[in-house]
Amino acid sequence: MNESGNHEDGEIRATRFRNLPSVNSLSQEELIVTQPENTELLSSIRRRVQTSSEKIETGSLNVLSAKYESLDYDTCENYLLLDEERKKGYRFIVKKSLARWFIFLLIGVVTALIACAIDISIEELSQLKYASLSKYVDEYVTQGKLHIPYFFWVLYNIIPVLIGSTLVAYVEPIAAGSGIPQVKCYLNGVKIPRVVRIKTLFVKSVGVVCSVVGGLAGGKEGPMIHSGAVVAAGLSQGKSTTFRRDFKIFKFFREDHEKRDFVSGGAAAGVSAAFGAPVGGVLFSLEEGTSFWNQSLTWRTFFASVISTFTLNVVLSTYHGVPGDLSYPGLLNLGKFENFSYKVYELPIFLVMGALGGLSGALWNHINYKLSVFRMRYIRKRWLKVIEACIVAAVSATLGFLMMFLLNDCKPLGQDPTKYPTQLYCQDGQYNVLASIWFQTPEASVRSLFHDPPSTHNATSLAFFVLVYFFLSSWTFGLASSNGLFIPTLLTGAAWGRLISVGLFRVIPDAVLIHPGKYALIGAAAQLGGVVRMTISLTVIIMETTGNISFALPLILTLIAAKWTGDFFNEGIYDTLIQLSGVPLLPWEPPPLVHNIYASEVMSHPVVTLKCVENVGHIVELLKLTTYNGFPVVDPPLTDQSEVTTYGRIRGLVLRSQLIVILKKKIFNENSDFWEDINAGIFRDEYPRYPTIEQVSVSEVEKTYSIDLRPFMNPSPYTVLHSASLPRMFRLFRALGLRHLPIVNDTNEVIGMVTRKDLARYRVWRHRGRMGVEELLISKEI
Amino acid sequence: MNESGNHEDGEIRATRFRNLPSVNSLSQEELIVTQPENTELLSSIRRRVQTSSEKIETGSLNVLSAKYESLDYDTCENYLLLDEERKKGYRFIVKKSLARWFIFLLIGVVTALIACAIDISIEELSQLKYASLSKYVDEYVTQGKLHIPYFFWVLYNIIPVLIGSTLVAYVEPIAAGSGIPQVKCYLNGVKIPRVVRIKTLFVKSVGVVCSVVGGLAGGKEGPMIHSGAVVAAGLSQGKSTTFRRDFKIFKFFREDHEKRDFVSGGAAAGVSAAFGAPVGGVLFSLEEGTSFWNQSLTWRTFFASVISTFTLNVVLSTYHGVPGDLSYPGLLNLGKFENFSYKVYELPIFLVMGALGGLSGALWNHINYKLSVFRMRYIRKRWLKVIEACIVAAVSATLGFLMMFLLNDCKPLGQDPTKYPTQLYCQDGQYNVLASIWFQTPEASVRSLFHDPPSTHNATSLAFFVLVYFFLSSWTFGLASSNGLFIPTLLTGAAWGRLISVGLFRVIPDAVLIHPGKYALIGAAAQLGGVVRMTISLTVIIMETTGNISFALPLILTLIAAKWTGDFFNEGIYDTLIQLSGVPLLPWEPPPLVHNIYASEVMSHPVVTLKCVENVGHIVELLKLTTYNGFPVVDPPLTDQSEVTTYGRIRGLVLRSQLIVILKKKIFNENSDFWEDINAGIFRDEYPRYPTIEQVSVSEVEKTYSIDLRPFMNPSPYTVLHSASLPRMFRLFRALGLRHLPIVNDTNEVIGMVTRKDLARYRVWRHRGRMGVEELLISKEI
Repeated sequence: MNESGNHEDGEIRATRFRNLPSVNSLSQEELIVTQPENTELLSSIRRRVQTSSEKIETGSLNVLSAKYESLDYDTCENYLLLDEERKKGYRFIVKKSLARWFIFLLIGVVTALIACAIDISIEELSQLKYASLSKYVDEYVTQGKLHIPYFFWVLYNIIPVLIGSTLVAYVEPIAAGSGIPQVKCYLNGVKIPRVVRIKTLFVKSVGVVCSVVGGLAGGKEGPMIHSGAVVAAGLSQGKSTTFRRDFKIFKFFREDHEKRDFVSGGAAAGVSAAFGAPVGGVLFSLEEGTSFWNQSLTWRTFFASVISTFTLNVVLSTYHGVPGDLSYPGLLNLGKFENFSYKVYELPIFLVMGALGGLSGALWNHINYKLSVFRMRYIRKRWLKVIEACIVAAVSATLGFLMMFLLNDCKPLGQDPTKYPTQLYCQDGQYNVLASIWFQTPEASVRSLFHDPPSTHNATSLAFFVLVYFFLSSWTFGLASSNGLFIPTLLTGAAWGRLISVGLFRVIPDAVLIHPGKYALIGAAAQLGGVVRMTISLTVIIMETTGNISFALPLILTLIAAKWTGDFFNEGIYDTLIQLSGVPLLPWEPPPLVHNIYASEVMSHPVVTLKCVENVGHIVELLKLTTYNGFPVVDPPLTDQSEVTTYGRIRGLVLRSQLIVILKKKIFNENSDFWEDINAGIFRDEYPRYPTIEQVSVSEVEKTYSIDLRPFMNPSPYTVLHSASLPRMFRLFRALGLRHLPIVNDTNEVIGMVTRKDLARYRVWRHRGRMGVEELLISKEI
Repeated sequence: MNESGNHEDGEIRATRFRNLPSVNSLSQEELIVTQPENTELLSSIRRRVQTSSEKIETGSLNVLSAKYESLDYDTCENYLLLDEERKKGYRFIVKKSLARWFIFLLIGVVTALIACAIDISIEELSQLKYASLSKYVDEYVTQGKLHIPYFFWVLYNIIPVLIGSTLVAYVEPIAAGSGIPQVKCYLNGVKIPRVVRIKTLFVKSVGVVCSVVGGLAGGKEGPMIHSGAVVAAGLSQGKSTTFRRDFKIFKFFREDHEKRDFVSGGAAAGVSAAFGAPVGGVLFSLEEGTSFWNQSLTWRTFFASVISTFTLNVVLSTYHGVPGDLSYPGLLNLGKFENFSYKVYELPIFLVMGALGGLSGALWNHINYKLSVFRMRYIRKRWLKVIEACIVAAVSATLGFLMMFLLNDCKPLGQDPTKYPTQLYCQDGQYNVLASIWFQTPEASVRSLFHDPPSTHNATSLAFFVLVYFFLSSWTFGLASSNGLFIPTLLTGAAWGRLISVGLFRVIPDAVLIHPGKYALIGAAAQLGGVVRMTISLTVIIMETTGNISFALPLILTLIAAKWTGDFFNEGIYDTLIQLSGVPLLPWEPPPLVHNIYASEVMSHPVVTLKCVENVGHIVELLKLTTYNGFPVVDPPLTDQSEVTTYGRIRGLVLRSQLIVILKKKIFNENSDFWEDINAGIFRDEYPRYPTIEQVSVSEVEKTYSIDLRPFMNPSPYTVLHSASLPRMFRLFRALGLRHLPIVNDTNEVIGMVTRKDLARYRVWRHRGRMGVEELLISKEI
């Protein structure tokens, strides 16, 4: 049957505008192809992808990589699942639910313990480092031999950074950076290779300690979130590929759906451990990962987050010498804001600061983007990456040293919150303020800027500090070292926020309300909002980590202003990095005004289909020739009647992984004596790393055998008509976490397939107030 | 074509177990019916529903009412919409987005102002009332004429309650109770008639002031949440049916999808105003309403919530004499918990208290359920309802009076937090503690129990108070008066929590940590958790309203224990009330182990379908004879070929409301000169109250005309195959907020229709640790 034969609404379809370039837009004629039984066709499909990728430039934000696969959130309701359900019954449901709660408890505890280990290592090592540096400076300054402490500082920076970046560059490159973009992609439903492996966790944890101790302008928060995700993935699966151990527990959670749920709990526990913000953690997970709000999952996520904060507080309160005092304010990362109020007339000031943060965040992102492109082009060798990290470490020390040395900002001792007051060139009884900022971890510096009494810092020092730290942090993020950007960004923002309060104080000297700490907080939020553009979770995280609930409105106004201003110029840094790596992330909503793009344009076609009972040799050949991960199972097209159909009618959907397991287990119709042992477990045993088709040996005789796919396939996959619009497919795909969406014609015959990349290809394009929809290329190159 | 002809998987389907009763389970033969062109068939459908409803008893929780309709969250992507999009372009998208933000701002402000009005009215009137009562008591006690203050008390209770309950019973019965169940249903996607009308708002606001001033054991929080929802619905639509005014603004928001988004923002703003808990408000909306997490909606919701808290704080801080001090702790409803810590060994105590709360909450729910059933049976007349409310008001006064009088609990003045210390029989310099609890609003009493210094209350008084208030609040909730259950439940819980701390103090007398306020808080949370079983939002609301972030773990443990214990016996009170009224609420997830129930069993059939070009007379007849709200549009079944099909192939879906507007506007093929004026606006103009078919006049000549449905229908509705499982349909329906889901056979012909009720009919049944799936009846009786 001619596919366009049933189009009575040609008139309606003619009204859509065709101003969008379309890589695979098709005329109706092109749609009519024969059933793909020959290899010629298969290679033509691959060619199409490759042709479109020829003109890719490094650093393009308009390309999707072909290499990323989707997670599959849809349940395959095949015969085996029904069989299992029937055998297990309700008691099993209860048992599974209890196991889930238990795993979430474990996730919370383990994530917190790792966070504690990172925290305490950083604290102890930094104390050693800065105590000795401070001593050296005061010792050698009188002798005029300041090059000696400088030399030690550079050394103390380079050694840990060298260790950390060597680990990252040579052992596990995915552990570089904060890990938040990777976790975000995973929660969005994209498989990022190796992102939740134990090796990654190890490199990340050691790496983050090294880079923070090494004095890089980086924080430990992002890596902690990533750690939580890895812990969750590891614990829930009851086996480890890195250690080649299978503990034979939690087998029922070995599927994409369950694993992603646990990872979202782990990410929340990570946020909770990093910031002491359980509600913020839940909101982070929801904001980044959830397409379908699931109350019980959210509830368990909250539980893991709370357990994580609790464990962290128990350990850290003991470490700080107040065991069991779980409301000790020192446990809040950024210190407790108390008796903190604002007046209505300050709100416009906060708005302006938000806009400033948006501007400066956009600039930061632009610089970081350019650096990333530069790195992608020229710093490709591993040893070059390590050297770059070491150079940044040395430059950090140098800049810090120069600032202390040149800006001799002295304040009397006494109202001093730093542990190692360094005198440098100050008079007796005074200390160098800049040394006290540089001779501590960035987190402690944020705390200083938030809570130091007014007039601790003078304007010149702050201005220089902002400038230096702004560029340093932008240079640091993206190095081959594990560190996040939360703390350095907060630090930059806190510094300029405090600078603004100094300015305001000069204009309105009697404004008693202008507590510099408050402005530092607003500046920090504005800068962070301008860089990452995260929204609700960020507000809540800042509220929780400062222990101040009544400050929601100023924060939210600042963050909105920062986001809107920043969005005028570019995307948030995480989104930029994700686009740079070509990950097909699905946004929250379909682009606007694309109801006139139809499935028939979006879909990939022709589709490679299988028959319900299929020849083994054909399957093997197909799996070797294509890279497709899902195959519609169809009734063969009818040719013996008056009506000739060119497509098969859909009967189900079978996955590559299922086919491979079937081939490996040799579940052929001719081996029917095997059949008793077959249950849904055989697929879970291989999860998540199925063998490739090359690893499965099928003899020539077996290639003449056949497989009955019906017990294994998903018998009723979601499908849509070829006339469905892009937003309609998008919503279905996003809300249900699909991986494959077969497109059918009026008589339910499969004519195409839509996957994540086909949908992610259409993107809103928003720049300096203008707006449109663009279509990305899909490339195998990046 | 025979529907079962294509079933090659009969073997697989045979394995499903048939242990579930099915009201309309069908054999394959029954499925084959002819196209419904005759009225005989139509009446047979109605008969089937009525037959199944014959055995309904009042108070059954296993019946769904047939009268509730769904909201439609799916966009109808018809020709008119595409046309509109093409004309408006991106500039319009931006304008619409700005308008949305503006409306959310308005929602926040107006909701807060209404909440302030309610708050201040209650405060002022209660002050008048209790000041005079306190004076009377102390005046007449010396004369031994205590019947005089008693008389005044009863009078002061009955008069406001009489006003309030008359308004509710005679003007707008939907304004009774807290309104949370109704808002919950609305957000879930069920149209509850009159729930978001301005008249409802008026009755609710006045009613809640009356009932709280009238001394009923009720709170103002639920009604405030409901107010927020009404405000949102009203503001976003730019017109009011109550006042018959159309402001001709915000016309583009006149559809279910947009309106529900605004209502969810309004509910959040309501929570935020009621409790000063913006994050809790957002979580409440998400928990109750969101099926598809939408970041921009959540962001706007958060904005409305924050604006609401801000406005409330600005007004109330001025009212309390500290204008502009937005962090004045008196603005927190339940007072600020400061310097509040717990030890690890207290956690088991909290768990036990949670379980206790679950038990007592389940009992409370059971009593309230029985009372509701009694009311449904015997208190049906309006005047009876008013009288019952007045009786409760009188009993409340009587019990309070008896307690004060009989339990002469005296404490020395000085550490006294009440405004009107009543001496009663106490010695000079002392005051009656019970009088101080009774002579204030319940909210103030909760505050007293949370913050009164240790040993303010003695065990006997507390025990009596718990007993009295437990039954009184259970009796009060469900009366014909507007009041919520949050505060009375918290009060009961706080009282027994404090009682427990008194007990603990006797066992471990040197336990300095046992601050009774902390135990009051845990008791309050446990009781509330046991009654309503809300989860995350509740935790966050309590955290925010007490200004204490570090107390998350004890709260969450208490609430989990309360929920699990309570769920062992019955459902939460809101769910019980919703089940009692037969609302087809869709839960979060499909029931477990129902993959073996297929669409062909669940669906309603035969389906009444329309042709693409349909006769006007037929449409009018159809609309008069059926109550269906959606009709699949199909190609007429083929009968002129060798293959005879009995069903039509799906082409689209048209709604009753669209048909009525088309008929009203007389958009017939024969009147083609009209066509220029037709745009998507004609449907929005009539929204939300479309005329009935009886109100549309169609002449006999016009009945011979025809309508082309194609420009109006949704051309690609989501459909599933007859072999799709219940969970699969459920997820699709829930995630995308559908109203109609046509079921098709292998060749895309419509063989059935699934609506909300068909899915809500299958429910998890969980009782005393056992579990199963039950199938509810659908009845027109309730």
